[in-house]
Amino acid sequence: MNFNEKLKLKCVEKNNRLCLGLDIDNNSLKNNSLDYMNSYIKDIIISTVDLCPVYKINFSFYERYGSKGYKILEKIPEYINGDSISIADAKRGDIGNSSKFYAESIFNYLGYDSVTVSPYMGADSIEPFINYKNKGIFVLALTSNPGSNNFQKKYVNNKELYKHVIEMCNELNKHNNIGLVIGTTNDDELDEVNLVSNSIPWLMPGIGFQGGNLEKSLLIGEKNYLSLVNVSRGILNFKDREISDIRQATVDYTSKIREIL
Amino acid sequence: MNFNEKLKLKCVEKNNRLCLGLDIDNNSLKNNSLDYMNSYIKDIIISTVDLCPVYKINFSFYERYGSKGYKILEKIPEYINGDSISIADAKRGDIGNSSKFYAESIFNYLGYDSVTVSPYMGADSIEPFINYKNKGIFVLALTSNPGSNNFQKKYVNNKELYKHVIEMCNELNKHNNIGLVIGTTNDDELDEVNLVSNSIPWLMPGIGFQGGNLEKSLLIGEKNYLSLVNVSRGILNFKDREISDIRQATVDYTSKIREIL
Repeated sequence: MNFNEKLKLKCVEKNNRLCLGLDIDNNSLKNNSLDYMNSYIKDIIISTVDLCPVYKINFSFYERYGSKGYKILEKIPEYINGDSISIADAKRGDIGNSSKFYAESIFNYLGYDSVTVSPYMGADSIEPFINYKNKGIFVLALTSNPGSNNFQKKYVNNKELYKHVIEMCNELNKHNNIGLVIGTTNDDELDEVNLVSNSIPWLMPGIGFQGGNLEKSLLIGEKNYLSLVNVSRGILNFKDREISDIRQATVDYTSKIREIL
Repeated sequence: MNFNEKLKLKCVEKNNRLCLGLDIDNNSLKNNSLDYMNSYIKDIIISTVDLCPVYKINFSFYERYGSKGYKILEKIPEYINGDSISIADAKRGDIGNSSKFYAESIFNYLGYDSVTVSPYMGADSIEPFINYKNKGIFVLALTSNPGSNNFQKKYVNNKELYKHVIEMCNELNKHNNIGLVIGTTNDDELDEVNLVSNSIPWLMPGIGFQGGNLEKSLLIGEKNYLSLVNVSRGILNFKDREISDIRQATVDYTSKIREIL
């Protein structure tokens, strides 16, 4: 089974499309030590893994503590233990020789199932990741932030740049292990994304804090192939940030998603 | 003094524009342990710091060893010890909240002087870096790899995408701490880059292994403001990779650069 099929199976098994973003800001916790952060993450995973088919780990929240943060990044795949799919949200991309080492880092050394990559440097910056046939690659196409207007939505030959990125992904997807990052805040573009994108998974950030449209994103993404709606702060900051609060918010989002599906 | 002035002063003081890329592949060394890699890097810096105004550290070569690689990344600024400018070649870029943490990681925690960032996510993904007024930000504009043809050179409103990126950098450069990554392999575009780019430093990779044009790159970059020509494999792989070999290759490149200037 290839990565995209494996991902879909996990979502179907758990009857969910929620991707929980483990963007843990230790300074907002009652104890800001890295040991506490580490055990807190483990507890979140234990208490939500029956519901969440996917976890996304934004590397910036860990890299801010250098090698100490990386020690936590190294442990998270162990905590998930194959029960869900992990996404290393690291937004890497470099010339081929360097991308090869980034892929080695994230897939082999750290042991994540998939990664986010930036397309600005073109196909040869993405190919070293794709060559890991059993791993997944989510390419930034149309992101959730205001800056998506600066370049992504600009017209290149009568078509927005992000559509050219999607077409490149269609071409590169020989192993069916490529997905797209499509921000849920792009309400107006989702139907058009669906027209351009081959049947591949969409990782859809922007729900909750950023104000993305859950129902529309979910339905159009599913029509394409699979929609992973990511929620980070919308779950992590629920009530007092106790593990039981996070469980509750995860249950609530799961219910909403199941209703829509 | 702002970052770009500080950078230029360092180059003028050392009468050089060589940026030595510390892309150490430990598997090509006679001892592949990380301890050896660490001391090898320290020795390279000690033996070249009188000549090199700038060192560029590509993070992929270190991240492939996770937290252990980060321990080396943490030490390199100590080895350089303010005698040269350090560039964290990490190609980061994310939504504002995450870019803020990447900046915190690279500038505060690791202590690098500057960083490379990808522009695909737009202005708000770059601003958190720029807000560190004393640090430098090199934005990927026109890279040295074949993939620069995929998107960077595509026309958006009668002008290539990379020129739009450069114009955004011109606008964002309130603290005079932004530079551009301009690959030396783009012979045909360098004059045009000079027309669009305000007077800011260009970090120019692609010399040596990738076959970039040293003389042309150096002269046009200097005409703009400052050209940092990066050499990595072209120096690191010289002869037997002994420290004396690396010193010799650094002397040779320095001579070439001084002649051209």
